[in-house]
Amino acid sequence: MRMYDIIKKKRDGNELTTEEINFVVEKYVSGEIPDYQMAAFLMAVYFRGLNERETYDLTIAMARSGEFVDLSAISGIKVDKHSTGGVGDKVTLVVLPIVACFGVKVAKMSGRGLGHTGGTIDKLESIPGMRVELDKSEFFKVVNEVGFSIISQTGNLVPADKKIYALRDATATVDNISLIASSIVSKKLASGADAIVFDVKVGSGAFLKDIDSARKLARLMIDILARYGKRAKAVLSDMDQPLGRMVGNSLEVIEAIECLKGLGQKDLEKLSIRIAKEMLELADVKVTEAQILEALISGEALKVFRKFLKAQGGDEGIVEDYSKLPVAKETVFVPSEKSGYVYKINAEAVGLASVLLGAGRSKKEDVIDHGVGIEVLKKVSDFVQKGEPLVKLYVGKRSKVDDAIKLIKEAYEIRQEQPEPKDVVLEVIE
Amino acid sequence: MRMYDIIKKKRDGNELTTEEINFVVEKYVSGEIPDYQMAAFLMAVYFRGLNERETYDLTIAMARSGEFVDLSAISGIKVDKHSTGGVGDKVTLVVLPIVACFGVKVAKMSGRGLGHTGGTIDKLESIPGMRVELDKSEFFKVVNEVGFSIISQTGNLVPADKKIYALRDATATVDNISLIASSIVSKKLASGADAIVFDVKVGSGAFLKDIDSARKLARLMIDILARYGKRAKAVLSDMDQPLGRMVGNSLEVIEAIECLKGLGQKDLEKLSIRIAKEMLELADVKVTEAQILEALISGEALKVFRKFLKAQGGDEGIVEDYSKLPVAKETVFVPSEKSGYVYKINAEAVGLASVLLGAGRSKKEDVIDHGVGIEVLKKVSDFVQKGEPLVKLYVGKRSKVDDAIKLIKEAYEIRQEQPEPKDVVLEVIE
Repeated sequence: MRMYDIIKKKRDGNELTTEEINFVVEKYVSGEIPDYQMAAFLMAVYFRGLNERETYDLTIAMARSGEFVDLSAISGIKVDKHSTGGVGDKVTLVVLPIVACFGVKVAKMSGRGLGHTGGTIDKLESIPGMRVELDKSEFFKVVNEVGFSIISQTGNLVPADKKIYALRDATATVDNISLIASSIVSKKLASGADAIVFDVKVGSGAFLKDIDSARKLARLMIDILARYGKRAKAVLSDMDQPLGRMVGNSLEVIEAIECLKGLGQKDLEKLSIRIAKEMLELADVKVTEAQILEALISGEALKVFRKFLKAQGGDEGIVEDYSKLPVAKETVFVPSEKSGYVYKINAEAVGLASVLLGAGRSKKEDVIDHGVGIEVLKKVSDFVQKGEPLVKLYVGKRSKVDDAIKLIKEAYEIRQEQPEPKDVVLEVIE
Repeated sequence: MRMYDIIKKKRDGNELTTEEINFVVEKYVSGEIPDYQMAAFLMAVYFRGLNERETYDLTIAMARSGEFVDLSAISGIKVDKHSTGGVGDKVTLVVLPIVACFGVKVAKMSGRGLGHTGGTIDKLESIPGMRVELDKSEFFKVVNEVGFSIISQTGNLVPADKKIYALRDATATVDNISLIASSIVSKKLASGADAIVFDVKVGSGAFLKDIDSARKLARLMIDILARYGKRAKAVLSDMDQPLGRMVGNSLEVIEAIECLKGLGQKDLEKLSIRIAKEMLELADVKVTEAQILEALISGEALKVFRKFLKAQGGDEGIVEDYSKLPVAKETVFVPSEKSGYVYKINAEAVGLASVLLGAGRSKKEDVIDHGVGIEVLKKVSDFVQKGEPLVKLYVGKRSKVDDAIKLIKEAYEIRQEQPEPKDVVLEVIE
């Protein structure tokens, strides 16, 4: 078998065999296939696509490139969630305590943020004392005792994805549905959960800009998991504006806690409740949205969250006293240049503005400032007076404030007509 | 300017600017753009194509990556020819002496063979004493005194092509018309000739299998050269069977000499005469095909060929005594398995069989056996009796005879009907 022939076969639009796909993944990870051949192959895949069978094979081959996490030490059905990445997406921090409240376990491995979207691990690391690098036994212990745990993905979880993704990122071959699906699902398979709910973001702040692409990706991921005998669902959610009010690490932790107290922004609360409900359903636990809301209002979910913080070394005092979190002292308001209704917010631009402030990374090596970020004061369909602030920036020493302000101003579209409000949950695919 | 953005731009089907194309070529040659980004770019070009302007820019950028040969030390209009590569193609050795007979100079830089097609330099190196590595001043001296010279391409002639071609060869991005045209024409531009005749081979033994692709490539190469102010024509010629009778290095030298004596196979003679006529016409010398034939029959062309051999250190005695050339002593006949007319010969398979005997290279590093090769005894439309030989193999120590015989048998298609004879010159494009 020669990589040249496989590239040519795909280039010419032919279906690859399981053996050929295994060969590509194994030999690329082992270094026997050079980057340049893999890059040509990925671009051929970009143009020709992979069918469902090929995508399934690619996913399995990638998952098998590293260790499979064995969650059998945790009792019951283990569910997981995965977000395709958005701006202000702190849903995991709200949903996992809720699910745990109803007796369903979540052993979550999460990543760091890159580009305009944040990562759960970065948010957790803004909490004083919080440890996200637990070994397996401690991880399982926290899940069993608290109901959930969140740790940082280890290096050996799907090394094929790590290597292939870095190459795709440098060669403009990221946005292909089969490559995206295989990247996401391979990690979910290796992480060992029995059932997964995908939060597929759609809109200006998501990498999927239209609902059709989101539907296709959701369908493909669910089908791949079904072939492997795993249950999955997808919630398609709106990312045409930042989710909730806060963008930035400690700011988002605060907002998640507010939501766990039943005081959250409606869009964040609604989406979190829906995702929690779908996760519970996949674990055969039927609950109503009202019951979930009750878990928030009663403080049950917050109690689980506190246990989680404590179990992983974090300061649970933050739940009452937000000043224990590193929040930037200096703030800057960005005023609206005209009066009218917020018609659109380019969420990606808001995410990039938060990166300019220091809340995220342009490159993997960048160091995050956990205290900086953006508070979104005006959301879509809100009325704003000329001069009234659109957002509040939380600014640090390294913040590029002027550039961030410029981005924010461009991100907001103000019109005289009030837009139709859009539901945060666009649809659910099972 | 970032390579990532250029890859994405081409991937999305957009036209690249001159600056972007210059950037790609310069930074790739300098090593600032890694192979993997170039490979992704080339595959995007494979799918999206380049328009004529982009192809022109790519060609110029590639040509400028190395030295331009200045032929002003040679008087008059300098013409050149280029073959896209075929099996048994010894046309250069016949045509250059003819053209020189009529006072037109050819300063030719040629390459070595790779894969199923041979290279002129390999053929010349089968001649005892022959030197193909001359420095510029000696090269020009030979051209001025003899009327033509053939030397091996120097390393600094279009280094961009060298590097890009090697990558294309490994990533299944060779067969794109713009990339082919830029590769060929950049070398012709850098070689300094005023006018060029392309011999574009079409058929089973050529990389262009159909006449439409050949027409497109010819048109594109002529138009690029016209933009640069150079004259060009293309002769589209049949490569649905080997050209002439001999395939292999010294065997082809012998056949070229026979042709120069006016004793050549009709297809070889006809094509050589036509190409010589077109080359002369581009240099404003009008001759008839009868006049050219006369230059062969009279021995005038052969005289020039002898001068050429002598000028470059070769043994001119080979012209009278072929035993001075290294021809393999051991021969094997491959008999026909049935009676009938030769309906088709897969010329590529014949070329590959000659490689198996040792006449060519699978990899650049392979060492050639100049004495081995194939004599094609039956050509298309010839009648053959069962058991009568189709070809005669000239076999060396390293020859894989059984594999070669198998390929030859598969290459011949014998039928009861006699096929219509096809003219070797398919058409001329100007």
